[in-house]
Amino acid sequence: MAHVDEARVGRVLERLEQGHPSSQLLVTDPWSIFYLTGFYAEMFERFSGVLLAPGKRPVIFDNALYPIDSYDNADVVVFNDTDDIASVLMEHIDPELPLGVDAQMRSGFLLPLQERRAASSFFLGSYAVAQTRARKDERERELMRASSAINDAVMAELPALVHDGVTEHEIAVQMLALYRARGAQGFSFPPIVSFGANAANPHHEPDDTVLHAGEVVLFDIGGQHEGYCSDMTRTFFFGEPDEESARIYDIVRRANEAAEALVRPGVRFCDLDRAARRVIEDAGYGPYFTHRLGHSIGLQDHEPGDVSAVNEDVVEPGMTFSIEPGIYLPGRTGVRIEDLVLVTEDGAEILNSYTKEPTRI
Amino acid sequence: MAHVDEARVGRVLERLEQGHPSSQLLVTDPWSIFYLTGFYAEMFERFSGVLLAPGKRPVIFDNALYPIDSYDNADVVVFNDTDDIASVLMEHIDPELPLGVDAQMRSGFLLPLQERRAASSFFLGSYAVAQTRARKDERERELMRASSAINDAVMAELPALVHDGVTEHEIAVQMLALYRARGAQGFSFPPIVSFGANAANPHHEPDDTVLHAGEVVLFDIGGQHEGYCSDMTRTFFFGEPDEESARIYDIVRRANEAAEALVRPGVRFCDLDRAARRVIEDAGYGPYFTHRLGHSIGLQDHEPGDVSAVNEDVVEPGMTFSIEPGIYLPGRTGVRIEDLVLVTEDGAEILNSYTKEPTRI
Repeated sequence: MAHVDEARVGRVLERLEQGHPSSQLLVTDPWSIFYLTGFYAEMFERFSGVLLAPGKRPVIFDNALYPIDSYDNADVVVFNDTDDIASVLMEHIDPELPLGVDAQMRSGFLLPLQERRAASSFFLGSYAVAQTRARKDERERELMRASSAINDAVMAELPALVHDGVTEHEIAVQMLALYRARGAQGFSFPPIVSFGANAANPHHEPDDTVLHAGEVVLFDIGGQHEGYCSDMTRTFFFGEPDEESARIYDIVRRANEAAEALVRPGVRFCDLDRAARRVIEDAGYGPYFTHRLGHSIGLQDHEPGDVSAVNEDVVEPGMTFSIEPGIYLPGRTGVRIEDLVLVTEDGAEILNSYTKEPTRI
Repeated sequence: MAHVDEARVGRVLERLEQGHPSSQLLVTDPWSIFYLTGFYAEMFERFSGVLLAPGKRPVIFDNALYPIDSYDNADVVVFNDTDDIASVLMEHIDPELPLGVDAQMRSGFLLPLQERRAASSFFLGSYAVAQTRARKDERERELMRASSAINDAVMAELPALVHDGVTEHEIAVQMLALYRARGAQGFSFPPIVSFGANAANPHHEPDDTVLHAGEVVLFDIGGQHEGYCSDMTRTFFFGEPDEESARIYDIVRRANEAAEALVRPGVRFCDLDRAARRVIEDAGYGPYFTHRLGHSIGLQDHEPGDVSAVNEDVVEPGMTFSIEPGIYLPGRTGVRIEDLVLVTEDGAEILNSYTKEPTRI
């Protein structure tokens, strides 16, 4: 017999009540469903959801393709591929009350509910789950630490895979086994392996590029441990780096450390972004740091909560996010250095301990 | 200089005009964007889109993180993580006309447009792109054939990886290299490797289950070739099968062949489902064939267009979909046999040629 986590549901409904009194919430993000119910399935184009409303038992909607336990504190509605999803949902949604949906819900499921007036109004209710998930409880903090410890261990093995003439892809395909050997279930995202000028593209995918002496080797990697994600970037030098790569490495490292030194309850996300960005701007590379400083992380590699110039939210205990400044020089080279941090009651833990000293392979 | 495929845009707008005269369409699915523009990026939580309207140049919306070419026949609007997406879109959406969005668009992007009355009304416009994508043109047919030829070749190599004591995971991690060696860019979906009773779960993920003599070995695999997906399932016997596994293999094979023999322009999807399901029902295993017969496929492994009991649409030339009956006996064993088919002007090509004879490893 399975259980919905009533403490978590309670915290979600409390936030919902503050934002949208007397409403109901349909949660469809698979990891939010896992967070609340322990049930996980990646649905692709299929529907799954949990309907929450104050004073009512949660209702879990499950496609028969994905076997699910019975719950002692929730109702489970099982449907088939041939059922009309809006009709299934409308047997449980209160048409007199507003309905919050999460940002991840497909418009293909939302629009039919709107057309059929399944609720009195519709609003974006992701915040209620996102804000709850953002504040990791003790059990989650332990899992985040363990997940990043695995990531440190995997990173430590990567230099041994690097040699003259190797391709990005040849290294990337060896990584899953490294995570699995340490008990991780898999990647938290496909690993990024970028050589030389490829490192100037923050989202480069490993290809058949061959490594040459003097190039940077950037690894942005993460694994998943009991659902919880790690995410870390280190940039190595293969042999003697050119002068500019060495210079930007030093700048990026200082930017990373400047932001990490500020993390504690009460600081704003935008202040962290500013601290790192200022180091890079002062060095004259501002236009080449083209993305936000970081992102929240937990059950997903990217969770709501940017570490960016426009997020004025205040950092709170239990939050976990990345600090990942970079400098990208198109066609030439790039450097990024990323750690995860966990906000504690009076400061922060840096969850990654792998060295940031400039390292030659 | 890049080009939007004007013939494809024209066909999409023609379908849109038939369904929703004088409207506009916002396409957000990354593969639909690729189909129309040649630009592909997996955006995760970020926005990207193409706005189409009769008589206007397409407008491509791109996050600065994902570098994009200039287009000679489209406008490109580049925004940043810190921009408000609804505001960016509203500079280009005509507020006097209805706006179609695709099913894949996140509610987190749709609801703000609705709240701010960015269009006169909102409707589900996926059909216009989906129906166009469903009818593969000559170039696409060639790519689908080539992709499935790679998949046949990979399947032919898998029996050599099977031996007493191997785990599902140990086989799964070897597969990416097999696809890459044949020029595929990667998987079209994570490979399914299921031993024995695990084959009774159609969506089992490879784990540390160890193979024993007498068990079935089910491979459901696919690769991606210049964007186009393959998808095939074969079920092998490791040694001498038990009597029931051998029996259901024969039934599933006959179900597969019964449906494939019917594929030609004019037959309905539901008729194909019925033909396969009847074979399984007549053999007494109806309740153990728990999913639709198949799904459309192309740039994505699953595209709109079920081969199911409720899809009364008629099959047309250029359509590509899977035929994948299965029998799943929980806790015991399972068999699935899947090919892709391409509908031609007067019949069908079965895109997979790997044997369906019962095969012992």
